[in-house]
Amino acid sequence: MAMSVRKGGSVNVPGVDVTRSVTAARGFLASGVAAGVKKPGKKDVALVVNQGPQYAAAAVFTSNRFPAAPVEWSRQAIADNVLKAVVLNSGGANACTGQPGLDDSRQMAQQVADHLSCQALDVAVCSTGLIGVRLPMEVVCAGIDSAAQTLTPDGDRDAAEAIMTTDTVSKQATYVSSHGWSVGGMAKGAGMLAPALATMLVVITTDAVLTSEEADAMLRASTRVTFDRADADGCMSTNDTVILMASAASGVRPGEEFQAGLDAVCESLARQLIADAEGAEHSIAVTVRSAASQDDALEVARSIARSNLFKCAIAGNDPNWGRVLAAVGTTQAQFDPRQVDVSFNGVPVFIQGELGAPREQVDLRRFDVVVDVDLHAGTDEATIWTNDLTHGYVSENADYSS
Amino acid sequence: MAMSVRKGGSVNVPGVDVTRSVTAARGFLASGVAAGVKKPGKKDVALVVNQGPQYAAAAVFTSNRFPAAPVEWSRQAIADNVLKAVVLNSGGANACTGQPGLDDSRQMAQQVADHLSCQALDVAVCSTGLIGVRLPMEVVCAGIDSAAQTLTPDGDRDAAEAIMTTDTVSKQATYVSSHGWSVGGMAKGAGMLAPALATMLVVITTDAVLTSEEADAMLRASTRVTFDRADADGCMSTNDTVILMASAASGVRPGEEFQAGLDAVCESLARQLIADAEGAEHSIAVTVRSAASQDDALEVARSIARSNLFKCAIAGNDPNWGRVLAAVGTTQAQFDPRQVDVSFNGVPVFIQGELGAPREQVDLRRFDVVVDVDLHAGTDEATIWTNDLTHGYVSENADYSS
Repeated sequence: MAMSVRKGGSVNVPGVDVTRSVTAARGFLASGVAAGVKKPGKKDVALVVNQGPQYAAAAVFTSNRFPAAPVEWSRQAIADNVLKAVVLNSGGANACTGQPGLDDSRQMAQQVADHLSCQALDVAVCSTGLIGVRLPMEVVCAGIDSAAQTLTPDGDRDAAEAIMTTDTVSKQATYVSSHGWSVGGMAKGAGMLAPALATMLVVITTDAVLTSEEADAMLRASTRVTFDRADADGCMSTNDTVILMASAASGVRPGEEFQAGLDAVCESLARQLIADAEGAEHSIAVTVRSAASQDDALEVARSIARSNLFKCAIAGNDPNWGRVLAAVGTTQAQFDPRQVDVSFNGVPVFIQGELGAPREQVDLRRFDVVVDVDLHAGTDEATIWTNDLTHGYVSENADYSS
Repeated sequence: MAMSVRKGGSVNVPGVDVTRSVTAARGFLASGVAAGVKKPGKKDVALVVNQGPQYAAAAVFTSNRFPAAPVEWSRQAIADNVLKAVVLNSGGANACTGQPGLDDSRQMAQQVADHLSCQALDVAVCSTGLIGVRLPMEVVCAGIDSAAQTLTPDGDRDAAEAIMTTDTVSKQATYVSSHGWSVGGMAKGAGMLAPALATMLVVITTDAVLTSEEADAMLRASTRVTFDRADADGCMSTNDTVILMASAASGVRPGEEFQAGLDAVCESLARQLIADAEGAEHSIAVTVRSAASQDDALEVARSIARSNLFKCAIAGNDPNWGRVLAAVGTTQAQFDPRQVDVSFNGVPVFIQGELGAPREQVDLRRFDVVVDVDLHAGTDEATIWTNDLTHGYVSENADYSS
């Protein structure tokens, strides 16, 4: 299996190939072109087309109450559980743009539909970039024409590149089942990565034979344990979208093992997003063990992953476990403070409410950091993936729109 | 009235003098000495003594479930609503130090009690600094001896200096009533400033005649609308303590106007803390208007004040209102997204769900920033004070313990 190396770190999910994505599954074409929405020469419009024979689809969207226009459009498009294509652009989020913005999303879908001889409502739209600015529609539409004319069965890499914003590398993941079906996906992330979905656009394809109901149930199950557990900066985007399209081109109807394959692709993409989050110099897995419930484990892990003080400490290679406890102490989870253990990279720095091993024993110079908290309150466990808070994050977000 | 200038900004609360604090009220002595807990030559132990004739006291502590040893001690000390003194140290938080740490806090109180010929349980203890390290007790106790020997009726400035950690200036505030009583307070803050109390140590004194019940009720009412609304980084400390001591030395029993005087002192101190928060280059007042309830207004204001993306944008002088909406959209507050207005420094950049004035009209170069969100859902209003997220914050918190 190829490993994906990011800023000194790597994401290695067993069975997942990170060099291919949406055209790894049969029945799909893709393309990515440089239309001029971003800087000249940078790919910024992508198209993924399902050639069938079936068109089952499912999608999960941001729960933000200011959904971007493309999210509003795509919600309508997915209502009948059928999608023939997804068109995506970077360089502008088309969010908070009112009715004119919604008209723009509809026009993008119509433009694709004209090329494919289908309905506009068979086409989902995803946009990413700055909020509150209209898209340059002439440029976008010319890009869609170009993308439609360059669709290929190996266009996955171009498509994955075209959806990047502040990402430094594109994100792809593919799982090939020994049962004869494949699932592949691409993602973009970088900033505004958080709670119920990161700012992420994710398109996943499979050639397995799935009903829309199955696709929906399995996509939701996967996002709950993967994308929902990636939390770079606690900020929920207006544009988050995860789409799964199933072409049935393999002719294979998978069993329950499909969930594991989909989970693996989603986990790889989610962890790739965190490893490449804005300014990230460390990728951090916060695991809470022996919790009284899954909710408790998640609440505690998320409270740590959202502590700016903790995240700055990691940026400084400082195993500041006091900041971990300060975060744990703000939760409502069931635990006795005198029984809590904390370890950094396996070194037990806090044991049963007392000082543990000297912090000097912890070496945080490597990219991957593991923080474990044992609540001694039950048997549940959860991991949140996050990253450190660095000068790079401040720079990227202080200067993003200028 | 003197204005307090901080990093280019100023805090001006009508009627409040920021050059005096805990010894402005009659009946109090204070001192601050350089004991050597911090760097040599820096004041790090402070003592505030109530000379009576009365000793009514109230206190509010962190709700963190890992309270520091001095918090556990002071909770016991305040149980009888009487305090004769507060001893404070910077240079170490004595948090997460287990039973040995609690013994250290008790020893600090006993040392003061020996000097004042009172009970250890008449003495509250506050500590601030790094979590998870024992205090150098020999140094601390020598400092307490020195502080007890240098108590004076104008020791407020020395005491305020001795409690600073990463603060760049000391924080004092005094309100003198025309009715013959005064209230004065000192505070330290800087990092871990957040929700139910910032990482703050605050000691407030008054010469008004108050019962302990009155002191308690009024202190809680003041903190709810002042310290609880200062939110620098969303991180709740293990050591937060706000103490009010009333000496009755003025002989004046105040009416309801005392609450306003106490509020003014607390507001001044809270805003001084935000203006001097770690790395702050802007002080930001986030006001939510026309909310359906006070809780809604607070939830929305706090969600904005905790958005790292928004706070980085302000650091970059970028009126990125899209990030404001993205934060508002994560709340459960009652509002119709098509009716929300947002303005930056009075410029209406988003009006009734549509693009408003061009963002170029907003000038964010001055220190104070005002963000107003109108929900058009009711009549309630609330303000949260916060600051921007800067390189300075990352530097201070990546390198703090090393």
